[in-house]
Amino acid sequence: MTTPVKPFTRSACAVANSLDVVGDKWSLLVVRDLLHGKSTYSELAKSPERIPTNILAERLERLEGAGILTRAPYQEHPVRYSYTLTPKGRALGEVLLAYVRWGKTHIPGTVAINQGSTGGEVPLPVTRPARSSKRKA
Amino acid sequence: MTTPVKPFTRSACAVANSLDVVGDKWSLLVVRDLLHGKSTYSELAKSPERIPTNILAERLERLEGAGILTRAPYQEHPVRYSYTLTPKGRALGEVLLAYVRWGKTHIPGTVAINQGSTGGEVPLPVTRPARSSKRKA
Repeated sequence: MTTPVKPFTRSACAVANSLDVVGDKWSLLVVRDLLHGKSTYSELAKSPERIPTNILAERLERLEGAGILTRAPYQEHPVRYSYTLTPKGRALGEVLLAYVRWGKTHIPGTVAINQGSTGGEVPLPVTRPARSSKRKA
Repeated sequence: MTTPVKPFTRSACAVANSLDVVGDKWSLLVVRDLLHGKSTYSELAKSPERIPTNILAERLERLEGAGILTRAPYQEHPVRYSYTLTPKGRALGEVLLAYVRWGKTHIPGTVAINQGSTGGEVPLPVTRPARSSKRKA
């Protein structure tokens, strides 16, 4: 086996280590929303899945620690942060796409949702640009 | 929005509903191992991540309920089952592949592991047969 750069929690498997970062029911939904243009805590909290705010706060902190996103203050008194995906975080788009394809094929009634910063549910042009509001995928 | 075939737990989002099925740290590792030729409970329990047996039993039952795998007895007294992925389960290979690519690129030292039924860790030729020392990023 190759020498790991850091000790792995479970094994050197790329899948296992990826799941140690985003293997839960919420993290990839946060990444989905950031990828689609949301950037603030309140925008993220308004997604239709209604992530509990304590879980949202914990996930944002954990994803920042894992290098998936960065945060920067956009307001003081009280301080508010905006969240932005890093290249590592944006690269999770490929995982999201695989989930979209699998879900749409195998879970009847599911759709690709683009949770943009407006909060509206807009079908996401997954494979080709075919939408009205000309938002970027 | 399309009329859902069944009520969704969180939203109609294909990603959210996929995560409701396999959004945890273990389910996709079980799928990985079945995809790579393992079929029995004891084979699955021997993977390097050492899934706790109570979690393995629960995940197998849940994945069967979700139509990801089927089980059939291969022995009586005591009864033992072999587990096989359904087409729906095999299709998760695309999600696994996305995780492998993301992990290998963004988590240093991780590798693609083929957990075959022998239990040996064999690097998996994911995209093309390249070998250990010159692993692609």
